Amino acid sequence: MSEPLFRWKDTIVALATPLGLGAIGIIRISGPASFNIINTLFPSKDLLQQASHTLHIGWIVFNHKPLDEVVISLFKNPRSYTGEDVVEISCHGSMYIIDSIMQACIQLGARIAKPGEFTQQAFLNGKMDLAQAEAVADLIASDNATSHRLAMHQMRGGFSEKIKLLREELIKFAALIELELDFAEEDVQFANRTVLKTLLISVLDTINPLIDSFQLGNVLKKGVPVAIIGKPNAGKSTLLNALLQEEKAIVSEVPGTTRDVIEDIINIEGIAFRLMDTAGLRQTTDKVEQIGVQKTIEKMASAYLILYLFDATKESITQAKQQLETYKQQYKEAKILCIANKVDLLDALNVFDDCFHTISAKKNIGIVELKASMLGAVKHTSISDTTVTNIRHYEALLKAKEALRSVLTGITQSTTSDFLAIDIRQALHYLGEITGQISNEDLLDYIFSKFCIGK
Amino acid sequence: MSEPLFRWKDTIVALATPLGLGAIGIIRISGPASFNIINTLFPSKDLLQQASHTLHIGWIVFNHKPLDEVVISLFKNPRSYTGEDVVEISCHGSMYIIDSIMQACIQLGARIAKPGEFTQQAFLNGKMDLAQAEAVADLIASDNATSHRLAMHQMRGGFSEKIKLLREELIKFAALIELELDFAEEDVQFANRTVLKTLLISVLDTINPLIDSFQLGNVLKKGVPVAIIGKPNAGKSTLLNALLQEEKAIVSEVPGTTRDVIEDIINIEGIAFRLMDTAGLRQTTDKVEQIGVQKTIEKMASAYLILYLFDATKESITQAKQQLETYKQQYKEAKILCIANKVDLLDALNVFDDCFHTISAKKNIGIVELKASMLGAVKHTSISDTTVTNIRHYEALLKAKEALRSVLTGITQSTTSDFLAIDIRQALHYLGEITGQISNEDLLDYIFSKFCIGK
Repeated sequence: MSEPLFRWKDTIVALATPLGLGAIGIIRISGPASFNIINTLFPSKDLLQQASHTLHIGWIVFNHKPLDEVVISLFKNPRSYTGEDVVEISCHGSMYIIDSIMQACIQLGARIAKPGEFTQQAFLNGKMDLAQAEAVADLIASDNATSHRLAMHQMRGGFSEKIKLLREELIKFAALIELELDFAEEDVQFANRTVLKTLLISVLDTINPLIDSFQLGNVLKKGVPVAIIGKPNAGKSTLLNALLQEEKAIVSEVPGTTRDVIEDIINIEGIAFRLMDTAGLRQTTDKVEQIGVQKTIEKMASAYLILYLFDATKESITQAKQQLETYKQQYKEAKILCIANKVDLLDALNVFDDCFHTISAKKNIGIVELKASMLGAVKHTSISDTTVTNIRHYEALLKAKEALRSVLTGITQSTTSDFLAIDIRQALHYLGEITGQISNEDLLDYIFSKFCIGK
Repeated sequence: MSEPLFRWKDTIVALATPLGLGAIGIIRISGPASFNIINTLFPSKDLLQQASHTLHIGWIVFNHKPLDEVVISLFKNPRSYTGEDVVEISCHGSMYIIDSIMQACIQLGARIAKPGEFTQQAFLNGKMDLAQAEAVADLIASDNATSHRLAMHQMRGGFSEKIKLLREELIKFAALIELELDFAEEDVQFANRTVLKTLLISVLDTINPLIDSFQLGNVLKKGVPVAIIGKPNAGKSTLLNALLQEEKAIVSEVPGTTRDVIEDIINIEGIAFRLMDTAGLRQTTDKVEQIGVQKTIEKMASAYLILYLFDATKESITQAKQQLETYKQQYKEAKILCIANKVDLLDALNVFDDCFHTISAKKNIGIVELKASMLGAVKHTSISDTTVTNIRHYEALLKAKEALRSVLTGITQSTTSDFLAIDIRQALHYLGEITGQISNEDLLDYIFSKFCIGK
């Protein structure tokens, strides 16, 4: 086939279900030729005469060879995911059949879709803004209740609306300031500086919490990194098992649907905690082992939460507190929970103050309370639905903030309109990048290349 | 939930697409409660009022929590795969979302489907016979044109029809012979022995080719096992690469759809050849290596086709012919192709007779012709669409044949009706087992347990 003249005229095809053996495979076709392609492959009925949103059962036949008995779903533009004519073929989940049907579609004029191209098309056809499109990828990747909720909220609009509104307000001022440039010699001010200042502060008040939400948002999306540290034999592995135990029971509740378990992830009320293996952390003179220790320390530096465990039968509270202070110095960014283990073996109940958790990992004492504290360490920072989880948005917000602050400084210092205009344009640019009101092909290609094929 | 009173009243749910991250996941629900379940989960529209074979887009909401924006497919009984009310939920392919929706379905009264249970239901509702149902599993597992064609033919009816017709004929005779039993003292013959004999021979004439087709059928379904043998440095690895080369190019034609490659499978005109690794085959005194050699020899005994390769620059035709005779004795069941390698290095063209292939694996000379011969070695036995590929059918056919031969012997020896009746019943039983006209729950459970979940 020769290269088509207009890119938007392409009809694209891809497998939308995961690779592998399954009962069903879904092949998705989108574009102007999709109905004609399926009509050629589906001899038993004239699909061009059928209503949108209907299902049709019959055989796919290509070159007089029956390929499979399938179910066809028809979605006529604009009432489809991409906004174009979309056909979904639900066939038996054999890779041979899927290959054959896709080859047939390609021979009839479709081309293989790039990753995320269906969603990119939906964005280009105004079905969703860019932040919403990105949320689709997040939604597919979501593996816990919190990342799911964040992605879902963003998909339904999220903070896009807010940013769009603020941006429109800014545009009005930008226009006035640009107008001032035309009358530069007359030294007039169309844009009321006081009102502009108020608006700028209001925009900053909106985006600052978004920026602040990123660290936690990102952590929540990927799972809160937790390090369990402490001396050898403090009971780190036993604690790990105690934390994991309940979770495994929950996961196995629906047979056949457990996800590929990355060992040592626990869910507490829908928030994922990634328990990092810090077994290698001990004093050593062995060179190779030292490298291991170094790596562990680096990994721990990324921990959002540290569980510092000590053996209450061997160490005094004073010793533990000293160690805790050392760790606090070492891991300034992290929250540290200090945990006295093996309390079941203590003769009398020692006096622990509030900053200590008392547990017996072995006897499963105090684990529920510990989990509640772990949750609290994350939740005390309120999780709002306008939490930023996407690093691209975070960076755009940071740049917008910088530009807005320059405008603000400019006003205070009575900078001339031309400089103000430059900074406002910058801010508008970065805010527009988030929602896709400002976009370029490279950016789009980059964003959608991270999607899975068929979406 | 308490155990429901009637098993057939269960509503079952399963993920029908492969596990893993994908754009789409399909959750399938079948049974009397399926429409009520989806109607509860889908607040935006009354799905009970919608026509069969229609698609509906909206949110799944459970306990006031939105789970995902999905597409619902409705199939009203009996116009569905299982013959019951069937609902398919096409959601975003996140395991978290899939889990959540399935959990919601379960809480609303569905239960997780067993492997193959949807197809089992289709069989129980008369949507297909047992051989057809088994073909569905074969179809999903098919990974080459031939296994695909065989499964497809069986799914569309295959030899079931033929066996059903013959069985009906036999039943008539069985009834007449049973009648004779009631009049045993009067020594009458209701069943004409000559006509019965003709029918028996005709049944045997039908099932004998089916039985004979099994070895090849099974081989074709799984891929023809091929062993490349020869002395070290005869060029076995080079030949393997030469055979594989073209194939790899074909496989990579559709990006993203290449199956999990089991190394060393080639397709020649839609027939899969499994090239077995016989690198370990050489004289050795090393004990461990000897075990390897033994394993290779055992593996080669299962080869349907043997490519015997020799280095034409080092061995004479006479030597090669001697070796060939040895191999022919050793591998009586296999077809052997004798191949002279490195012919590009020969000064003059040696005289090879027809039983030799002359190739240069390195220079890619003679490979096309070799492939044609490999194909011929399989195809000269004609592949008919009534090829038996299922070992259960094969064994039932063997037992039916045995019983039929007993009847035939009985007639020749004028055995009494009661003994004839027993053998005919046996034959009817085994023929009925193939199509499922005779079945018991254990057999069904066994057959369908081999399916994948969601089918």
